[in-house]
Amino acid sequence: MPPGALLTDLYELNMARSYLRRGMRQEATFSLFVRTLPPSRGFLVSAGLEPCLEFLESFGFTEEELDYLERELGFPRDVVDAFGALRFQGDVWAVPEGRIVHANEPILEITAPIAVAQLVEPYLLNQITFQTTIASKAARCAIAAEGRDLVDFSLRRTQGLEAAMTVARVTSIVGFSATSNVEAARRFHLDVSGTMAHSYVESFPTETDAFRTFARDFPKRTTFLVDTYDTLNGVRTAAQVIRELGLQGELGIRLDSGDLLELSRGARAILDEAGLPRVRIFASGGLDELELHRLVRAGAPIDAFGVGADAPTLDSAYKLVEYDGRPMMKLSSQKATAPGRKQVFRGPDGDTIGLREESLPGHEPLLVPVMTGGERTGPHRTLDTARALFRADLERLPEPLKAIESPQRLEPGFSDVLDALTETARADALRRAAVP
Amino acid sequence: MPPGALLTDLYELNMARSYLRRGMRQEATFSLFVRTLPPSRGFLVSAGLEPCLEFLESFGFTEEELDYLERELGFPRDVVDAFGALRFQGDVWAVPEGRIVHANEPILEITAPIAVAQLVEPYLLNQITFQTTIASKAARCAIAAEGRDLVDFSLRRTQGLEAAMTVARVTSIVGFSATSNVEAARRFHLDVSGTMAHSYVESFPTETDAFRTFARDFPKRTTFLVDTYDTLNGVRTAAQVIRELGLQGELGIRLDSGDLLELSRGARAILDEAGLPRVRIFASGGLDELELHRLVRAGAPIDAFGVGADAPTLDSAYKLVEYDGRPMMKLSSQKATAPGRKQVFRGPDGDTIGLREESLPGHEPLLVPVMTGGERTGPHRTLDTARALFRADLERLPEPLKAIESPQRLEPGFSDVLDALTETARADALRRAAVP
Repeated sequence: MPPGALLTDLYELNMARSYLRRGMRQEATFSLFVRTLPPSRGFLVSAGLEPCLEFLESFGFTEEELDYLERELGFPRDVVDAFGALRFQGDVWAVPEGRIVHANEPILEITAPIAVAQLVEPYLLNQITFQTTIASKAARCAIAAEGRDLVDFSLRRTQGLEAAMTVARVTSIVGFSATSNVEAARRFHLDVSGTMAHSYVESFPTETDAFRTFARDFPKRTTFLVDTYDTLNGVRTAAQVIRELGLQGELGIRLDSGDLLELSRGARAILDEAGLPRVRIFASGGLDELELHRLVRAGAPIDAFGVGADAPTLDSAYKLVEYDGRPMMKLSSQKATAPGRKQVFRGPDGDTIGLREESLPGHEPLLVPVMTGGERTGPHRTLDTARALFRADLERLPEPLKAIESPQRLEPGFSDVLDALTETARADALRRAAVP
Repeated sequence: MPPGALLTDLYELNMARSYLRRGMRQEATFSLFVRTLPPSRGFLVSAGLEPCLEFLESFGFTEEELDYLERELGFPRDVVDAFGALRFQGDVWAVPEGRIVHANEPILEITAPIAVAQLVEPYLLNQITFQTTIASKAARCAIAAEGRDLVDFSLRRTQGLEAAMTVARVTSIVGFSATSNVEAARRFHLDVSGTMAHSYVESFPTETDAFRTFARDFPKRTTFLVDTYDTLNGVRTAAQVIRELGLQGELGIRLDSGDLLELSRGARAILDEAGLPRVRIFASGGLDELELHRLVRAGAPIDAFGVGADAPTLDSAYKLVEYDGRPMMKLSSQKATAPGRKQVFRGPDGDTIGLREESLPGHEPLLVPVMTGGERTGPHRTLDTARALFRADLERLPEPLKAIESPQRLEPGFSDVLDALTETARADALRRAAVP
């Protein structure tokens, strides 16, 4: 889908209409962060920045979209003309893709005239939330797999096809070795992996015929799906065909149903007895990180997993933190937002959220400028860069946060400067709330 | 995204390669159904058929895609040529969008030479699963809302932007009255709804200034977001501005945080005391059908809800049920698939799954032919048709299946003919499973 400027919520357009009509072009900074982690998450992996930057670079309304605003939504002509002139020429600071972040830490901060900064909210929130959700979930799978291969099997389970492309891209950042999605492999230069389906086995008179035919067509790399009829019988049939045809190359069997722990042990024993210790065992079928963890910890002799489970979404927010040079703060119960343009400082004892202009000795700032005046700063970041960032961050992540069951969380502290600013902004907000 | 034929899993291409190479062009029928419902679902609403038909109509490989198969995946030239000639010229029977269906009932059955029927699996599974998931979830929201208005607020929470467009379309089938997504409203001719964000209120010196300005810019239709600072104070400010400016038209206040039951009661009392009984109360903020149900049953004076929560995916399957005229059946533990081209017969005492050629007196068949020889039969179905089908089915749905908490399910029975065929196919499968 070509991202259009109407891919936004009506209230953004209403607000922008009001701002533009009144000539309110003050600069605003919005901060995008995740409020709280789901119960089963110990950390997040930043992802989704690249598509956001592409969207901002090409932001603008087409004639057709402007017509819709005027004719269907009744926007006045002068305001429609003002919409037509809008471009994104603001600044973006962001945590690069692949870096590990925590609740309340800004992943992206954007500074631009308030109308534009407001209009792009749904796009940015959608992309960062979805991609960070998937990266974080997939990173937990990678931890649980303890070095075994992981393959993205999500194509049939995501919310549409665009989502599946995204999942293939993002899982490759956090250590998945391949995807089953051929178009994603082509577009993102990923390794692609695939075997056979039950229907293939069924389309031959016997399982043996199916295995023989497939092995002849794919002699260098064959994985036999063994659970169409009786799983361990299927393993025996695969072993027989491998020996009968003298197959070498990359060989494997795939389990896609039943008790994977018990069946993988049975399969391993059959293969080993048949003198085939190098034939790998691949498992799939509704796996998530908890099931991977259980299987790996129980010592299941599985060499690779296909993962395609869904993931809950994250409680992310896009909040005004500065307007016209003034730090902003919302007071709504349980949803208060700390004011100001922020920075996340990573130090030896954890993360501290402070203001952008602060400098904390011995700490590394996570947000970096990625767009200035609407232009990207520096080259497009590659997937390889994101992968390296993730590996480095994961290595330094404390073990309790990596726990698959009941992970701990890191609660980033506030710097003294941010604490003080928060108090000031709260008092200011209370004043503005007063009934006149 | 333009759907390409490479938007498939590698194993489909591998199997198709093997089939094409061996000249296996026998017709296969695949059946797409949901195996089991999630714990919180009592029924499903069929959706996703229209994009599937569009995909099938235009199915084919581009030169670029064929090059990728040859150069990157090492497919032999003769097979690549055979891929290049593939079109979808098969038949599709399906349950029209908007109809209520149950676990194990085929939503779509496709008959085509096995290579093509296999290649399109991921696309069909992705679309039907996702869209049926959303339609079913949204239908539960509509039931829970008991006549109150529902607005799709999902744009920022879905897996990408394409998914948000789909959610807006599908929720409109099951009774949502509007969407906040402007592009979706434009494309699908939906009503669009939107108010203001907290950032708008914050960008003015006082809440009163913000409300006054917005009301002047939108005098015919204004909804005040009242929870930026103190919610009930915000309601008083809104009431004051409405009276001060003598506003008429469609007026409302929106609650987006806190205890919605308590706050809606407080807000209603303030508005009524101010002589504003016609000002509506709109609620949003992480609402799902359980929360809607709780609020409605507790008598919360809320007139409309904004809903944007995510939904778990469904355990759907795409299984070979007939090949070369022979009924097929897979035996894998707990995942056995009933054989044959099927029909769902809806009668006064529930649903019966039978074979397509059967006829059960007093029962209505749910699957209808939608594509024959690769051509659509009949006109494109409109959203209005889907809406009418949904309303009619919902009216006839037994109450216990509509329960928001602990809904019952309908377990469709098998016809005698299907029972008999299942026994025959099982025996046949056992024979084929035997090690030679």
